[in-house]
Amino acid sequence: MRILGIDPGLQITGYGLIETGPGGPRLLEAGCLKSTAASSLERRLAELAAGIREVLAEGQPESVAVEALFSSYKHPTAALQMAHARGVLFLAAAEAGLPVFAYPPARVKKALVGRGAATKSQIQSMIQSVFGLEKPPSPPDVADALAVALCHASAMGKGNLTSKRRGRGAMPDWLQEAIEKSRKKPRT
Amino acid sequence: MRILGIDPGLQITGYGLIETGPGGPRLLEAGCLKSTAASSLERRLAELAAGIREVLAEGQPESVAVEALFSSYKHPTAALQMAHARGVLFLAAAEAGLPVFAYPPARVKKALVGRGAATKSQIQSMIQSVFGLEKPPSPPDVADALAVALCHASAMGKGNLTSKRRGRGAMPDWLQEAIEKSRKKPRT
Repeated sequence: MRILGIDPGLQITGYGLIETGPGGPRLLEAGCLKSTAASSLERRLAELAAGIREVLAEGQPESVAVEALFSSYKHPTAALQMAHARGVLFLAAAEAGLPVFAYPPARVKKALVGRGAATKSQIQSMIQSVFGLEKPPSPPDVADALAVALCHASAMGKGNLTSKRRGRGAMPDWLQEAIEKSRKKPRT
Repeated sequence: MRILGIDPGLQITGYGLIETGPGGPRLLEAGCLKSTAASSLERRLAELAAGIREVLAEGQPESVAVEALFSSYKHPTAALQMAHARGVLFLAAAEAGLPVFAYPPARVKKALVGRGAATKSQIQSMIQSVFGLEKPPSPPDVADALAVALCHASAMGKGNLTSKRRGRGAMPDWLQEAIEKSRKKPRT
């Protein structure tokens, strides 16, 4: 089962594509979509839509996983901006015929680190460990996207997070390079 | 100049297409887009996108006008839902090559009724009067969409709201019928 996890944001949207299987979850691709800060909101959303459509077309996931909305936000205006981006990402999923599954943030953290509270760097370290990466995924948005993908895998009963893969070695060079590249030269 | 005013909402998005000219603003089309409440968020957003694309393709506006975001909302969760819809509407505008202009709610009200505070029914009455409609546009989302379109027309210096058209008679039957129809059987 291929799952695309997404951490929506107008400035940075993290994404991570995983595939579940008997040997545990595999990381296929991860990166982030950035929009041009100087552009108008509508242009930025169009950039985001183009980016996620490319990710969906290339990665061919069967489902999309995101964090559910919080009940309250410390920064309501930033949350509204994020929600504009989230709407566009949901639309892209629907137009690709994909269902979107939303998980409460505490559940995502619990699936990954065993409890409902965790710092960003704990999430990053755990993602590094699960996929045997050389370094923690950065920016944290990428780790968050992978975390929610793993949460969905786990919810579907196919996400053996205590996989044999953990710590078994570094990720393949091509994947590490792909992630590095995606970090330096983001899509769109 | 053709302007499409939009009042974004997940349940109901009001829209109104106007054309400015020497005789004052003319109402070309107005109505609302509703999404199926029982559907998933991603499907609802896809319905909304399909609806607004149809409106844009048929109406061929040159610009889109919406209210700017508030600085705070009484109902933050509803505001986040609205922002998902708003993001999709902005995307549709960008993909149609149209700029989106956002006006603070107080400015929209001031352009229409002469001061920054007005009830929904005052807005509806004023829209009725400006376009010489038989009845106030309903639901209020339609009136709000027309109000922001007029605000943009006025900002562009082409929106003579003290037009000779005011009170000059009822709107054409075909237009009244179109609005009635759109109210009873909303698109999508």
